[in-house]
Amino acid sequence: MSRKTRKRRSQKLGLAPGTLVHVGERRTARPEITLLEYDAGGLKESRLAAATAGGLARGAGTLWLNVHGLHETALMADIGRRFGLHPLVLEDILNTDQRPKVDDYGDYLFIVVRFFALDAAAGSIGSDQVSMVLGADFVLTFQERPTGTLEPLRERLRGDKGQIRKLGADYLAYAILDLLVDSYFSVLEQLTERTEALEDSLLQQATPALLREIHEIKREATAMRRAVWPLREVINSLTRTEQRFFRQETQPYLRDIYDHAVHVIESLDSIRDLIAGMLDIYLSSVSNRVNLEVRILTVIATLFMPAALIAGIFGMNFHNMPLIGDNEGFLVALGMMGAIALVMVTIFWRRRWLH
Amino acid sequence: MSRKTRKRRSQKLGLAPGTLVHVGERRTARPEITLLEYDAGGLKESRLAAATAGGLARGAGTLWLNVHGLHETALMADIGRRFGLHPLVLEDILNTDQRPKVDDYGDYLFIVVRFFALDAAAGSIGSDQVSMVLGADFVLTFQERPTGTLEPLRERLRGDKGQIRKLGADYLAYAILDLLVDSYFSVLEQLTERTEALEDSLLQQATPALLREIHEIKREATAMRRAVWPLREVINSLTRTEQRFFRQETQPYLRDIYDHAVHVIESLDSIRDLIAGMLDIYLSSVSNRVNLEVRILTVIATLFMPAALIAGIFGMNFHNMPLIGDNEGFLVALGMMGAIALVMVTIFWRRRWLH
Amino acid sequence: MSRKTRKRRSQKLGLAPGTLVHVGERRTARPEITLLEYDAGGLKESRLAAATAGGLARGAGTLWLNVHGLHETALMADIGRRFGLHPLVLEDILNTDQRPKVDDYGDYLFIVVRFFALDAAAGSIGSDQVSMVLGADFVLTFQERPTGTLEPLRERLRGDKGQIRKLGADYLAYAILDLLVDSYFSVLEQLTERTEALEDSLLQQATPALLREIHEIKREATAMRRAVWPLREVINSLTRTEQRFFRQETQPYLRDIYDHAVHVIESLDSIRDLIAGMLDIYLSSVSNRVNLEVRILTVIATLFMPAALIAGIFGMNFHNMPLIGDNEGFLVALGMMGAIALVMVTIFWRRRWLH
Amino acid sequence: MSRKTRKRRSQKLGLAPGTLVHVGERRTARPEITLLEYDAGGLKESRLAAATAGGLARGAGTLWLNVHGLHETALMADIGRRFGLHPLVLEDILNTDQRPKVDDYGDYLFIVVRFFALDAAAGSIGSDQVSMVLGADFVLTFQERPTGTLEPLRERLRGDKGQIRKLGADYLAYAILDLLVDSYFSVLEQLTERTEALEDSLLQQATPALLREIHEIKREATAMRRAVWPLREVINSLTRTEQRFFRQETQPYLRDIYDHAVHVIESLDSIRDLIAGMLDIYLSSVSNRVNLEVRILTVIATLFMPAALIAGIFGMNFHNMPLIGDNEGFLVALGMMGAIALVMVTIFWRRRWLH
Amino acid sequence: MSRKTRKRRSQKLGLAPGTLVHVGERRTARPEITLLEYDAGGLKESRLAAATAGGLARGAGTLWLNVHGLHETALMADIGRRFGLHPLVLEDILNTDQRPKVDDYGDYLFIVVRFFALDAAAGSIGSDQVSMVLGADFVLTFQERPTGTLEPLRERLRGDKGQIRKLGADYLAYAILDLLVDSYFSVLEQLTERTEALEDSLLQQATPALLREIHEIKREATAMRRAVWPLREVINSLTRTEQRFFRQETQPYLRDIYDHAVHVIESLDSIRDLIAGMLDIYLSSVSNRVNLEVRILTVIATLFMPAALIAGIFGMNFHNMPLIGDNEGFLVALGMMGAIALVMVTIFWRRRWLH
Repeated sequence: MSRKTRKRRSQKLGLAPGTLVHVGERRTARPEITLLEYDAGGLKESRLAAATAGGLARGAGTLWLNVHGLHETALMADIGRRFGLHPLVLEDILNTDQRPKVDDYGDYLFIVVRFFALDAAAGSIGSDQVSMVLGADFVLTFQERPTGTLEPLRERLRGDKGQIRKLGADYLAYAILDLLVDSYFSVLEQLTERTEALEDSLLQQATPALLREIHEIKREATAMRRAVWPLREVINSLTRTEQRFFRQETQPYLRDIYDHAVHVIESLDSIRDLIAGMLDIYLSSVSNRVNLEVRILTVIATLFMPAALIAGIFGMNFHNMPLIGDNEGFLVALGMMGAIALVMVTIFWRRRWLH
Repeated sequence: MSRKTRKRRSQKLGLAPGTLVHVGERRTARPEITLLEYDAGGLKESRLAAATAGGLARGAGTLWLNVHGLHETALMADIGRRFGLHPLVLEDILNTDQRPKVDDYGDYLFIVVRFFALDAAAGSIGSDQVSMVLGADFVLTFQERPTGTLEPLRERLRGDKGQIRKLGADYLAYAILDLLVDSYFSVLEQLTERTEALEDSLLQQATPALLREIHEIKREATAMRRAVWPLREVINSLTRTEQRFFRQETQPYLRDIYDHAVHVIESLDSIRDLIAGMLDIYLSSVSNRVNLEVRILTVIATLFMPAALIAGIFGMNFHNMPLIGDNEGFLVALGMMGAIALVMVTIFWRRRWLH
Repeated sequence: MSRKTRKRRSQKLGLAPGTLVHVGERRTARPEITLLEYDAGGLKESRLAAATAGGLARGAGTLWLNVHGLHETALMADIGRRFGLHPLVLEDILNTDQRPKVDDYGDYLFIVVRFFALDAAAGSIGSDQVSMVLGADFVLTFQERPTGTLEPLRERLRGDKGQIRKLGADYLAYAILDLLVDSYFSVLEQLTERTEALEDSLLQQATPALLREIHEIKREATAMRRAVWPLREVINSLTRTEQRFFRQETQPYLRDIYDHAVHVIESLDSIRDLIAGMLDIYLSSVSNRVNLEVRILTVIATLFMPAALIAGIFGMNFHNMPLIGDNEGFLVALGMMGAIALVMVTIFWRRRWLH
Repeated sequence: MSRKTRKRRSQKLGLAPGTLVHVGERRTARPEITLLEYDAGGLKESRLAAATAGGLARGAGTLWLNVHGLHETALMADIGRRFGLHPLVLEDILNTDQRPKVDDYGDYLFIVVRFFALDAAAGSIGSDQVSMVLGADFVLTFQERPTGTLEPLRERLRGDKGQIRKLGADYLAYAILDLLVDSYFSVLEQLTERTEALEDSLLQQATPALLREIHEIKREATAMRRAVWPLREVINSLTRTEQRFFRQETQPYLRDIYDHAVHVIESLDSIRDLIAGMLDIYLSSVSNRVNLEVRILTVIATLFMPAALIAGIFGMNFHNMPLIGDNEGFLVALGMMGAIALVMVTIFWRRRWLH
Repeated sequence: MSRKTRKRRSQKLGLAPGTLVHVGERRTARPEITLLEYDAGGLKESRLAAATAGGLARGAGTLWLNVHGLHETALMADIGRRFGLHPLVLEDILNTDQRPKVDDYGDYLFIVVRFFALDAAAGSIGSDQVSMVLGADFVLTFQERPTGTLEPLRERLRGDKGQIRKLGADYLAYAILDLLVDSYFSVLEQLTERTEALEDSLLQQATPALLREIHEIKREATAMRRAVWPLREVINSLTRTEQRFFRQETQPYLRDIYDHAVHVIESLDSIRDLIAGMLDIYLSSVSNRVNLEVRILTVIATLFMPAALIAGIFGMNFHNMPLIGDNEGFLVALGMMGAIALVMVTIFWRRRWLH
């Protein structure tokens, strides 16, 4: 994905900033817009057709507009006009390989976060950009495809009468961030399980396939860390400075997500430490095993040498050789071979060269 | 433990923040609540039944409430209501894999620390979260299981008439932190002893088991460092900013714990340096040993070659060969073999290839 | 290039600072000067002969003077006088191996950036210094050779009636920086493609040529990172402090380039991580392959040993040897050889020593 | 030493902070107390019996009390009462494995430094804690054993009429610090000499003993760096903030020690760099040497093969074989063996496989 | 040099700070003092005899006193008295292994820099300390030996009428720093050339001598980096804070040297990266080459085995063996040997084991 994205990005070269081009993959047939408007009194939910997005009327409560599918730039421009978004905000929403960040545009905050999930089909970790705009009484969220990530929150809004509905747009923004950060933990679990399974395999047999798997996990942990590290800064800056958007009561909740983000980073660091240790064990056990095999083979070769020499000696054609005429000569020779081999085996065994 | 914990945490996904779920292991049959209330005049100690926790009346002195066992969420909610704790504080107390941290909630400080102890059964290092709430005149502490960690402090409170009892809740909080940090030293000792024993074993024989032990110690030292590093920051921030909770007289004591925490971190760094050096020695001595063995075997093989060639030469079937008909021919041939072998042994000995 | 540049630089030793010497390569026949003067109303474009550069008259709009070819120091001195540039600014423009930086000279900002491009002929990445002077109503840009980098911007100025022309010199400076940073992405793509192609080759056969290619990519990624890292600082300092030159409306655009620069740095770090992992895989697979080959050869040698010994035994010249006189003796001997070889192959096969 | 110290420290677990327990070794028979009282006018020196330490009367000049031997806790408590020291200061003086630090107790500064010296007997580097209390007109110093470290300073105080005696307690504290930091240089010299001797040995023969010596030096350099690094911070903080204790005139002197401490740190870093380089050379030359030896042995084995084959061929029992009946057959066969061996030696010689 | 210096430094142990001892080498017969006094009007140059140094009278212009040779401590004390230098300044001038630094003594700045030059005789890089004192209207410079480093500046002062002479002492100090930093570039060039030559040699043949050369260059680059890194800080602090000594007009020039220092540091980092890559290539190609050689030898050995076995088989003494009595038996056996060898060579060739 990232390769394709970067390619398209370079095609933007020379366009005016703010020109809307969707840099990313078209992952859904047509955009879906979900609109929730609520206050302590009630909640109104509607699915808008793309065409009517610009004409939505506002009530008094908190509004949450969620968009899946970003490839219809006309619709995006429409939404941008409706909520007074800066052209660069729209551009960043459409470029779906942004780093997590927060930008203060005076009337609203623009927040970019990444969502991580197991891609069950590919058996690897995929990630999606979630862009969020937080205004005084509205929250806009944008994703490339419908992942169902935010569905639990919608459930809570529908069911949880009065509680979350009373707390306004900043609490909703917090709840979205909390959901995303919490979702990291299930990815962490999968990474940890794969790491532990890998460790078990490693102790049995160090194969080159394991080496590649080690590097694969390391790469995924690094990619995830790259997304969580700036997220930590984002949340930290929300805690410290953006008091206009997050009220005093919401601050402890932000600090809580901050702790979670730090926790995720440290868990990823643990995984990377484990991986580094496994790499050492891998390399050491591969070279150890081959060394032992070569040693055993060399020992075997060495065992045959005296016997071969004795055979050679009694194969010489001298007319006058001891034992040659004796009836037991052949057995004596074989006995010498056996005795020497026995002595050598004993010595090698004691030196632990045959294990 | 950490794997299991993370698993449960991901089951919380989508729940409202502040929903009380015990993320951790149930390690004790039922919660135990110990209550100490004291001032310079006297001390009153009681063990509460879980049910009556909410109804405790307050005297004038300092109150210390200690809870072992966190799985009865109703009890926890009870305590939370009684002392006016924020829902996130309760949530963090129940999530027992928090990083050490301090949060200022205005009326009270919430401090999370880890306690390390040797798990004699497993032969490894275990750790427990100790959560602490410090208010103007009370201290609450929470642990998953009764470890007896804080018993020495209770002893001092019972016995030491007037001295510690006069100094209030902040000094009590300091004393708890001091006890926890001091307990790190015995874990450090065990790690150091294992490291030194490992070093002795390493000098005798470098076995793959030692490699795993090396990585084991490294992992434990790293895990401990991860817990002590944020603790250092916690104590540092208590020293600098939280003057509301820690009076001027208690400040030097906090600085003292700070020094201890730094000391622990540096000792862990020393252990990690030692471990890194041992890894080098291990890898070098393994490859060195196998190299020497292969060299000895190769030397032996080389020693047999000239003798085998001589035997081969006198085993040729030419009708006309020197020495063949001589009576001493056989002995001359053996003599040649022996002489050449002797010369080679001398050369190899001088080049130190037979050691 | 860098070697030659440094050489010339050392020839400046002992000259007065501000003495104009072109430290770099002469890459174009004669300097080319392009002059654009525009405001919302219109745009005037002219190519100046070198000699007349000093005498240009000024209208009311924004002026953009672009110079290709820096080796005529008289011309440069001329331009310097015309726009009141400090001698050190001219010296830095002529020294084309500067680090990216921004210097505030009161009346104007002096900005140095590097432009990266694929050198199609050499198959490697080349870079050019772009020096920029930003005054209240003018922008000067200086390059060693005509690369066409800034042509898209001229196109937009010519075509895009009124929009970009209204926004003044600071927006023009932003647009130039944006173009340069955006151009990094195509270089990044090429680096990524080469890295991925390398990875594919590596999985098939680890050759010493790949090792050199790995180090080549690493070196280019490092060189590029060295140029982007200070650029990030440059843009950051523009965002924060130089409010005199960049108006409030241009600030979000600068922040946007800043994000891009950080993105480039992180992509380069990813490439370097990939490279580090590939180096591990390379070294491991080389030693692995040779180890396997040596093992197979050793196994083959070992297989022949018992057969050779049997041949030696029946080649001994004892008068009285079993089987010697039998008609099937020869076949029995061959059968023993075959049987032993079969047993050994079975054992080695089971131990996976023949793969 | 450090192991034993940490053990005793863990025995303190659960004691009240400020309880005086000597954590360290008892290294001298009984404490020795040296008292110097001086001003520009004169100097009075006395050795106190332990018992009378508490009763010392004060004159008008500067007082320097030095204590060797810390195991009599009653004496220490006595001194603490006399000079109004905080219990934690006494505790830190008795715990002789403190990190270098400075604590401001309002009326006095408490400074902990380490003194390094060659332990001639053990051939390694030993270190001692020197604790110092600096008040308005007195300096107290505490050491575990009489090392004579501070004797040169006493000599200067006795001899140098008026100069140092005029400059007060802060200059005395500076002079003590200066003496300690200067003493690091002789330890540095010894480390450097050992490193250089090691390098010479390494170029001649890489033995496993050298590897252990390399790690030994690395460990000592690291231990020393750990003591000097916080010392640098201590002196830096004295320079910047503690203006109450160090007068303006003494500041340049402190800055001077600061430079020395930085110099020591950098020298230690140089030594560690050297050591890292030597480790590379060691590992490379060990594997190189064994490789060369194995190659020579393999070459020798290869040289014998064609000769052995020829012997085998003419040892076959075919009734009809060429040369067999010839008189010179034997010599021809030997000639063939010799010729082939000669060709092979020539080839191997040219390929440089016999060096 | 550095070893000798440190030795002497330890002999200072216990002397009063400010005691003048020349710690360094005596590199010139007797001190040479050059005095330049100039203003816009004219320039007066004189060489002072050591004895008269103290008695120099002052005119109105800028004074530059340069001293080569620091071993006559009486002379140095003389100069110190004449210009009111602090004893520690004199001590630092005489200790010629100082780190680059700047100290503000109120009336003057004391600056220590290192000068690097190729030692043509030794073929390595030597360095000298240049100490500089900058007062309101004078500059003092001190070096151990006459290197001619500052001669170009004297030339400019003599020739360049009015320009540099007008600009005062701070500009002179800048010009000296500029000259020193510029001189680093020629050392950089030599290092780069040696690195590139080394790389060429490495691609042809990896010899142990190259390994030592690699470490030699790494060490020199590291030593130089250690001197330039603090110099960067020195110049940075001059730019920021010491406005008393450097006037506003001189600031851009200082910023220019700062850029050069950063450039030098980055070039040194590039060299170190190159060196690290070469170390990888070295180790890999050494082990690769030996591996290939051993493989070829093993292949040769394997080729002989079937032939030897066939010879052995037909050398057995069975009365009844096939082919033995045939006329072409011998040729058939040789044919079998040849055929098997041919098949094996083909297989090994295809597996690329013979390259």
